[in-house]
Amino acid sequence: MKNNDISFFFNPKSVAIIGASPVAGKLSHVIMNSLKDIGYPGAIYPVNPKYKSIDAVECYHSATDIKADVDVAILCIPANGVLKAMDDVIKKKVKGAIIVSAGFKEAGHEGVELEEKLKKISREAGIRIMGPNCLGIFDNISKIDTFFILRERVRRPSLGGLTILSQSGSFAGTIMDELSAEGLGVAKIVNYGNRVDVGESDCLEYIAEDKSTKVVGLYMESVDDGKRFIEAAKRCTQKKPVFAIKVGRHEAGMSAAKSHTGAIAGRYEIYSAAFKKAGIIEVKGYSEFLDACKVLSKQYPAEGKMVLIVTDGGGMGASVADACSDFGLIVAEPSQKIKEILASKLPPFCAVGNPIDLTGSVTDDDYVMALRETMIEYDAAIIMVLWGPPTLTDKLIGMLADAAAELKKPVIICSPGGEYSHKRNKMFEEAGLPVFSSPEEAARAAAVLAKTTHS
Amino acid sequence: MKNNDISFFFNPKSVAIIGASPVAGKLSHVIMNSLKDIGYPGAIYPVNPKYKSIDAVECYHSATDIKADVDVAILCIPANGVLKAMDDVIKKKVKGAIIVSAGFKEAGHEGVELEEKLKKISREAGIRIMGPNCLGIFDNISKIDTFFILRERVRRPSLGGLTILSQSGSFAGTIMDELSAEGLGVAKIVNYGNRVDVGESDCLEYIAEDKSTKVVGLYMESVDDGKRFIEAAKRCTQKKPVFAIKVGRHEAGMSAAKSHTGAIAGRYEIYSAAFKKAGIIEVKGYSEFLDACKVLSKQYPAEGKMVLIVTDGGGMGASVADACSDFGLIVAEPSQKIKEILASKLPPFCAVGNPIDLTGSVTDDDYVMALRETMIEYDAAIIMVLWGPPTLTDKLIGMLADAAAELKKPVIICSPGGEYSHKRNKMFEEAGLPVFSSPEEAARAAAVLAKTTHS
Repeated sequence: MKNNDISFFFNPKSVAIIGASPVAGKLSHVIMNSLKDIGYPGAIYPVNPKYKSIDAVECYHSATDIKADVDVAILCIPANGVLKAMDDVIKKKVKGAIIVSAGFKEAGHEGVELEEKLKKISREAGIRIMGPNCLGIFDNISKIDTFFILRERVRRPSLGGLTILSQSGSFAGTIMDELSAEGLGVAKIVNYGNRVDVGESDCLEYIAEDKSTKVVGLYMESVDDGKRFIEAAKRCTQKKPVFAIKVGRHEAGMSAAKSHTGAIAGRYEIYSAAFKKAGIIEVKGYSEFLDACKVLSKQYPAEGKMVLIVTDGGGMGASVADACSDFGLIVAEPSQKIKEILASKLPPFCAVGNPIDLTGSVTDDDYVMALRETMIEYDAAIIMVLWGPPTLTDKLIGMLADAAAELKKPVIICSPGGEYSHKRNKMFEEAGLPVFSSPEEAARAAAVLAKTTHS
Repeated sequence: MKNNDISFFFNPKSVAIIGASPVAGKLSHVIMNSLKDIGYPGAIYPVNPKYKSIDAVECYHSATDIKADVDVAILCIPANGVLKAMDDVIKKKVKGAIIVSAGFKEAGHEGVELEEKLKKISREAGIRIMGPNCLGIFDNISKIDTFFILRERVRRPSLGGLTILSQSGSFAGTIMDELSAEGLGVAKIVNYGNRVDVGESDCLEYIAEDKSTKVVGLYMESVDDGKRFIEAAKRCTQKKPVFAIKVGRHEAGMSAAKSHTGAIAGRYEIYSAAFKKAGIIEVKGYSEFLDACKVLSKQYPAEGKMVLIVTDGGGMGASVADACSDFGLIVAEPSQKIKEILASKLPPFCAVGNPIDLTGSVTDDDYVMALRETMIEYDAAIIMVLWGPPTLTDKLIGMLADAAAELKKPVIICSPGGEYSHKRNKMFEEAGLPVFSSPEEAARAAAVLAKTTHS
């Protein structure tokens, strides 16, 4: 009876907003505006017995009063009214409901019962349910945005190949804002919250076949059906890289995760093993998740763990080497042959090991020469650029981007510092290179790329 | 014969610049400008037989031609001319020399010999030497700046209580720029490079008695005299917090450190034990060093490891809890009594554990109430502020700063996100609260504060 194809959620021809309101700041009003702002091309039907029209759009007494077909109903009403509203939604033969309302499992006993009833409804009526306690769907291709977060506070990212699937709404909203600030392009962001029906496995199955998604980031606190999850994830990882975070790795995090979505987070090790089995790249914190978004969106995967470090500051280069070793990368010296080539082309006080230290006398050309001569022996490079030396010019940015594109191997920029560096970091990003502002972030990102072939 | 008091380096009444040049961009010219720009109040004597005057200041043929006394000579000439120049400097009875020139131990065999000769000169003539291959001294109190890095590229930080001692020049320059960008106040930054004479122990002895320094950050690749270092560090940690990084923890980092200052970095474990013995807080990477600068400049030390997490997003709060556990902090729930108080003052869907999840319905007052009611049972707090909820206003910033000041316990802000958050993070900083933009950074910083009483 259940419709296994959830693609209509991502391509609804029409949506009804149950509990629509003309009051600015109200959840349902924010959602209406989110849909308008992204340019949703379908029909929007507000539903609320209190109003005849909302923002000049006809408002319906009940979902059943809408004449046209409705693909998706978005429920923004208090938890205790949801079951009654679902009756109408089902009568209207809506394909799926996104229940954004909170106050379910996470609010205690009564909420648990409500969720059981929703599960039953979904099963029996064959209607698919996303949520409750969720933000729903942001889709940059089909132009859906059901997120009830003001655009002034959380910006929407530009179009790209990254899709985020998240159990947590705060994670989905925060990462959305970060990705916008970083200028990283997004295909879809999905938050299914308490997951009475649609969850990570449904989404992975759908996303596996989705041509617009090139990379998938998954946030998990718990899993609904472990076996099905591994199957769905496997199918997805065969087509595109998937990285995942399991939150609630420790006792404290686990009880936190439990209280907020009502889910019982299982033992961390089981998740870690499942990720491995499914070919998923595991990341271990919010920062690493963000690093993974950045490098996997922009870079070729690394074919191994051999990392080259090029720097113009010895001490800072040594910090990158330390961090690389911490993250399991191999920082081996180049061969004698390549060392000789480098030595012949660099001043005598430069260090031609790994890191290659070009020193404060560095030129733009030195960086590119060192990278080109050496990369044949490495899987990835971290180029540390400290902008102190006055001999360095902004031309370096384009030169390194060109070299990276030709080498077809991951090249990561690491450029810590203040204002002068921050501006150039934006320029590196615009040139398509992933930039990190500390040795530790750069090394962690390189390690994520190395895991793409070592999972 | 050796002058054990190195305070004259930080308070020179006059400096001679050996190898001064009028050519913009030349090392010595940058130094002359650095001294002028910071407002160095003493006399500057350029020395170079090629010029009669430099930038309208009389230029001397040799150091011995200067009539007045000279406290410090700054040598900016090629390595092979340094010994000859030192003859004149010694004849002139200069108290100390800062040799910024590179091309010594780090450049190979001849350089090693040169350094041995410098060591001998220092011992026999009783002249103190900083360097070679160093940036020297930046002192915000006495207004010295011998750093040959253009201000346009690396900004100088404002006045404050933080002093950085660094073997590495690139580290000193980069951290200087970061501290400026973060708005963190600095007393002094010292870079002694190849350390033929003045090193970490001399500086720690001096800084221990320096009233302007409240916190000390130390960057080490190697140590000159381990026993003396521990003694000097102990004396310093008895008066103010000292945190340190040992770079070259792994084989790769070690060889990198070796090639760039010519020092042989010892086994990491020995350093770690020495830090512990001396009461030094060990940090393990550039990022953690920067975190330590931030929290130790701004916060009371934590009296234990019990950390409270307050959040308005459950999933993001769970990430903070995970990260805190990773860094050895204790994320225990508040007592039943406090839970009841919180429950009586918050809506039923809030989670009153640890994290306290105020949810998307949060108000400014909720944050402050939760903090005030609960902190009696905790040593530090991480307040995660996600700005999505429209009920949150900018007033929250001042309210949290006031509450933190009254509580006299560390309160750390964690606010990831995009532009809207970035702007408010600046406001948090201006209000005196340390802000971090990821759960991992915030937790690491809290762990640094906890180490102040657990070392």
